[in-house]
Amino acid sequence: MQYKFILWVVLFSTQLFSQDKPVDYVNPFIGTSNYGTTNPGPIAMRGMVSVSPFNVAGPENVPLEKDSRWLSTPYVHENTFLTGFSHVNLSGVGCPELGVILAMPTTGDLEVDHLKYGSSYSQEKAKVGYYSNTLDKYAIGVEATATTRVGVSKYSFPEGDANILINLGLGLTNEQGASVKVVSPTEIEGVRSVGSFCYYKPEEAYPVYFVARFSKPAAAFGVWKKPTTYKGVEAEWMGYNGQSRIMKGYAKEVVGDSIGAYMRYNFKVPTEVEMKIGVSYVSIENARENLEKETSTRSFDRILEEAQNIWNTHLSKIEVEGGTKDDKVNFYTALYHTLIHPNTLNDYNGEYPKMKTRETLKTEDTRYTVFSLWDTYRNLHQLMSLVYPDQQSDMIKSMLQIYDESGWLPKWELNATETTTMVGDPAGIVIADTYLRGITDFDVEKAYGAMVKSADQLEDNPLRPGLKDYLEKGYLTTKTTNSGSVSSTQEYNISDYAIAQLAKTLGKKSDYKRFSKRSISYRDLLDKEINLLRPKNDDGSWLSPYNPETGANFEMNLGFIEGNAWQYTFMVTHDVKGLMKLMGGEKPFVDRLQDVFDKGQFDMANEPDIAYPYLFNYVPGEERRTQETVANLLNSYFNNSPDGLPGNDDTGTMSAWAVFSMMGIYPVSPANTNYAITAPKFKKVTIHLDPNYYGQEKLVITSNASSENRFIKGVTVSGKPHLSYFIDHQELVNAKTIDFLLEQKELESK
Amino acid sequence: MQYKFILWVVLFSTQLFSQDKPVDYVNPFIGTSNYGTTNPGPIAMRGMVSVSPFNVAGPENVPLEKDSRWLSTPYVHENTFLTGFSHVNLSGVGCPELGVILAMPTTGDLEVDHLKYGSSYSQEKAKVGYYSNTLDKYAIGVEATATTRVGVSKYSFPEGDANILINLGLGLTNEQGASVKVVSPTEIEGVRSVGSFCYYKPEEAYPVYFVARFSKPAAAFGVWKKPTTYKGVEAEWMGYNGQSRIMKGYAKEVVGDSIGAYMRYNFKVPTEVEMKIGVSYVSIENARENLEKETSTRSFDRILEEAQNIWNTHLSKIEVEGGTKDDKVNFYTALYHTLIHPNTLNDYNGEYPKMKTRETLKTEDTRYTVFSLWDTYRNLHQLMSLVYPDQQSDMIKSMLQIYDESGWLPKWELNATETTTMVGDPAGIVIADTYLRGITDFDVEKAYGAMVKSADQLEDNPLRPGLKDYLEKGYLTTKTTNSGSVSSTQEYNISDYAIAQLAKTLGKKSDYKRFSKRSISYRDLLDKEINLLRPKNDDGSWLSPYNPETGANFEMNLGFIEGNAWQYTFMVTHDVKGLMKLMGGEKPFVDRLQDVFDKGQFDMANEPDIAYPYLFNYVPGEERRTQETVANLLNSYFNNSPDGLPGNDDTGTMSAWAVFSMMGIYPVSPANTNYAITAPKFKKVTIHLDPNYYGQEKLVITSNASSENRFIKGVTVSGKPHLSYFIDHQELVNAKTIDFLLEQKELESK
Repeated sequence: MQYKFILWVVLFSTQLFSQDKPVDYVNPFIGTSNYGTTNPGPIAMRGMVSVSPFNVAGPENVPLEKDSRWLSTPYVHENTFLTGFSHVNLSGVGCPELGVILAMPTTGDLEVDHLKYGSSYSQEKAKVGYYSNTLDKYAIGVEATATTRVGVSKYSFPEGDANILINLGLGLTNEQGASVKVVSPTEIEGVRSVGSFCYYKPEEAYPVYFVARFSKPAAAFGVWKKPTTYKGVEAEWMGYNGQSRIMKGYAKEVVGDSIGAYMRYNFKVPTEVEMKIGVSYVSIENARENLEKETSTRSFDRILEEAQNIWNTHLSKIEVEGGTKDDKVNFYTALYHTLIHPNTLNDYNGEYPKMKTRETLKTEDTRYTVFSLWDTYRNLHQLMSLVYPDQQSDMIKSMLQIYDESGWLPKWELNATETTTMVGDPAGIVIADTYLRGITDFDVEKAYGAMVKSADQLEDNPLRPGLKDYLEKGYLTTKTTNSGSVSSTQEYNISDYAIAQLAKTLGKKSDYKRFSKRSISYRDLLDKEINLLRPKNDDGSWLSPYNPETGANFEMNLGFIEGNAWQYTFMVTHDVKGLMKLMGGEKPFVDRLQDVFDKGQFDMANEPDIAYPYLFNYVPGEERRTQETVANLLNSYFNNSPDGLPGNDDTGTMSAWAVFSMMGIYPVSPANTNYAITAPKFKKVTIHLDPNYYGQEKLVITSNASSENRFIKGVTVSGKPHLSYFIDHQELVNAKTIDFLLEQKELESK
Repeated sequence: MQYKFILWVVLFSTQLFSQDKPVDYVNPFIGTSNYGTTNPGPIAMRGMVSVSPFNVAGPENVPLEKDSRWLSTPYVHENTFLTGFSHVNLSGVGCPELGVILAMPTTGDLEVDHLKYGSSYSQEKAKVGYYSNTLDKYAIGVEATATTRVGVSKYSFPEGDANILINLGLGLTNEQGASVKVVSPTEIEGVRSVGSFCYYKPEEAYPVYFVARFSKPAAAFGVWKKPTTYKGVEAEWMGYNGQSRIMKGYAKEVVGDSIGAYMRYNFKVPTEVEMKIGVSYVSIENARENLEKETSTRSFDRILEEAQNIWNTHLSKIEVEGGTKDDKVNFYTALYHTLIHPNTLNDYNGEYPKMKTRETLKTEDTRYTVFSLWDTYRNLHQLMSLVYPDQQSDMIKSMLQIYDESGWLPKWELNATETTTMVGDPAGIVIADTYLRGITDFDVEKAYGAMVKSADQLEDNPLRPGLKDYLEKGYLTTKTTNSGSVSSTQEYNISDYAIAQLAKTLGKKSDYKRFSKRSISYRDLLDKEINLLRPKNDDGSWLSPYNPETGANFEMNLGFIEGNAWQYTFMVTHDVKGLMKLMGGEKPFVDRLQDVFDKGQFDMANEPDIAYPYLFNYVPGEERRTQETVANLLNSYFNNSPDGLPGNDDTGTMSAWAVFSMMGIYPVSPANTNYAITAPKFKKVTIHLDPNYYGQEKLVITSNASSENRFIKGVTVSGKPHLSYFIDHQELVNAKTIDFLLEQKELESK
């Protein structure tokens, strides 16, 4: 295993550092271990399709095997047994889903059992938009790239019998069911059921359609089916009970839970076959159109070049200079991760499925999907607003389409299903934050109405369970919910703060007051005895006995979701001053905040405390704690290696934290346009701004950063001294230049 | 149960005998008990679709429940628990297959588990092209009719909530897998996998496509899916593990093994909904076109009227007068049963699936399917040649299409799959028989080539396993096969006889000699010690010990398929004289033949001995044994009641036996154009001949038949005395009149 990694480093290094385009600094293996749940498969920017090596099935891959444990990625770097390449995949999520439409090249006799045809692999290599390896068992070289909606693979077969399998039985998803048809010796079409994300809402399972085209006509083709194993008397009559069957030359649909199709060749000489798989969530016809429109007759190499060009254009929106090579790899890989999700849902022709019922609708703009908003509202969308405001605008428009279609803003939307994963009402926070940053080309009144609806509607409200108690008591209680009464209260507070801020901007004064008042109701849950949040019971009494540590490591508990009191108490960034006052002032606040880190309660791997490192900035004179903490976290958790993410990337949220932190700014409080400032990692960061949204073409952040110079001595903005450790978004985008003077001075002891 | 039957008799009688059109004499319940495996569902003549009540699922129906035993029919008259109406069904077969695309109307809340939504039923009524009942649980009146490719149902709902379920999980077939999509509030489309007839050849399973249209738009609709039940750790995370899920308003495909779709209504007043289900074996598009072209905007009543008119036109090709009402019911129901299979495979536009691979082909004529030739070569096709020669011609052309597509003539073809059920090489027998009767409008040279191919090709010959031994030794041995060495030898003999006869007609003299010689090789298997056939071992010795009774009641045995020595010894109708000589002359022959009946070895329920009753005609002076035996068998086994068939109808073969026998003629030796003569049941039988094939417009058979006049005193043909108890086909069709003088005289004692 170690060998493989070393080999990869050598290859990667050789290739990578001969050039210095941003695209060349991306290491797609970062996050493929340590539950980062990214995968190294090629994907176009915000693509619907990726081509991920699938190595999580089969006993060889235990303990990181998909059926033996909760595993939410099609690829794990430590694993060794590959059973195909999946064509729709999620990156950086915490629940198993997608990982279907598996293609696998093999040689010799046809074998359709993935446990038998699977292979170890070597010479693994990944770049932006590119992946390759060699399948040891078959001596087949595999290369893959992708357009937005098409996965493109090139298989280099040795001479002799060869097969390309499209396996629709195997998948990471918990759903089953597929249909497949060989259309001709060069085309296969089909449907695969997916859904039940997080083992939830099975009634919203949905189909993904595909068309696969092959550059060489198959000499033979067919389909296979592994039927249900019968029991009882019928089983006695079935010689074939439960066995896979091969249906040679079959030209009609085969439907069922465990099916596939194959193309078969006999090569006189070593031969390359290119395979393109177009995907759609609307129809097979659209999948075919996607394939044709996006790849036409273009070759693998041409498609790869185009994919990398698009990636490079977007990654180049931020140029960094200085720092180590690993810093650049870490930075651009993180930026790359923020440009995967949300991703494109609509087809080339604009069609996409309506929420839940999946009627076909059409959009002019990009309809984005995979809104893991409990994660991304904290920083990813702020990064998009700054660097890719056109994309962020379309994401807001997509949220409003979701509202139009379903009556509700998204919480955790996935391919036109609302998975209702996690807690809170995060969409409105993103909307307000975006609008306040000056991205206003969407129907803000509709958006505002949607936000107020989820904030106020007591009955049948899927976004804010427990709202009645929240409104009446100011908080959810241990009776309202058995999971996260305090967390939900805090989330609702933040959402209400966002509504208030947008209301203020829109001139809705009474709403501003009403929601501002609602936004600080968490205060009743601060137990001043311990200066930590604490659940309250229905009668207003504290939950007792109470252990604030309970809830770490995703342990289920009454007060907090995926965390404990330590990890949540400071998650009121919209009311830091209020919290500070409650805690008894600046010193108790700083002490308690420092305790989180000193007592090992800080969790870099999850979102609630993700802004904590920046909160020292709120106390004049304590800012260097931020600088040191952020630098240490970057060094500890974000590395140029497969385990180089702290845990689930959470559809780019962890990566966005790194991108901001390495640039020296962080959007510390969602729906508040202030960035907290810390020491940048690079000597020069150039952010190319979008003139359609911002008055300046670029922002240049300079510093004398080095491994020693980690602390801020002074900052100038537009050439003038900047005395605050915060900077507002408008000031930032108009600044043209921000210059950091850094020094080595250590953090003074308290 | 008895009550229900009595009720039906009353209803049927009242309706039926007020008119006297042939169509009114058909009782579709005949054969729905006693394993007749017919069903009372409406079907157009040779229709692709029927609408059969489906009452073979659920513990209420044990012991005649589909999963608790071998059961090959969607409907059993004794059963009480109905779970829908299946839209593709086989009639009179011995293996479970089809019985899918189940529709079920219900009221109240949506329930998709057939064990819960199933209902008892009453007021059951069936006529040609029509079925109705009342679902007791819901007080819903159901009526059904059909065109060739469309099932049409009318549901009379009470006021209140109502549902129409399309269940694609449940079915008689052993196959699973389906896809379904609600296209609009008035249309559902889908695919269902079927196949593995007789639990064999699962690799040739195939899809049946459908489109369902509803006369009233649904107020709500959706799909359901019952997923696989997971085991292991994943099961712990699935609150919904194994549970059916309802997907409301869902507008895309759902695929899987146990799925369905529903339309939901709320009726203010009692309301009728008409549902049309178009079917195709090619595509959903074709299913839709079939539906539109065949039913257009026509109402249920209009469609029913047209179906009955077509049936009546064809049933009227034979008019019978005299006899009891039950005689007429038995006759026309039997004739009706012979016009169900073979049935139409091609779509309205002529498209149909190619054998095995299922590529789409197109035909000008009707492409027939369901060729249960081991059964039907004995009499059904002879009946078609006589009365419906245009249909028989198309059946031969269909066999040649099958040959073109697969390289082999059919054995037991089913919806473009060759099930290879039963033994022998029967297609050529039918081809020769048809040609010899003067139906010559097909490519006889191609057909002849196909026949010789299966007779001569030693390797990879799917039609004649054991051919090498057959050619070398003259017979298959107990080493050649463990099942039916003697039977197969006899079947190959008959096929070779058919080739010889056709060769003779085509002027192929050497082939005539060669195959004539081959056709009597069974003679080596007659053990003269017992005057019965007996298996031989590889070394030419007799199988010992040997019990000729072994094999009755479908018991597996070395020598015979579905029978024993008694039931097979006389199945050499092409060489009766030869057999007689071997046995020692006329008397030993008659004695042994009579023994079959006297010792209880005759099996009316299966084909091998089906011609035995007519073999007495070969011995001058013994013909009245034929007359008496046939009359007794008709009385014993063919009755106007659900158990009024001797067993499986075998796609009309048993019924064809009855039709011929009741007319007083029987095609005793396949590929020989002689009919054996017996006493007719009716005073007058008028067969309307097809002028495109025959020189006369009709043949009128008269007699003084009565319950007493059962024996032939004399016969005149075209007004002249006919001294033989056989009549050749050409003489028959040119006769214009055949007049029987019958008398009461008892059979003389031997």
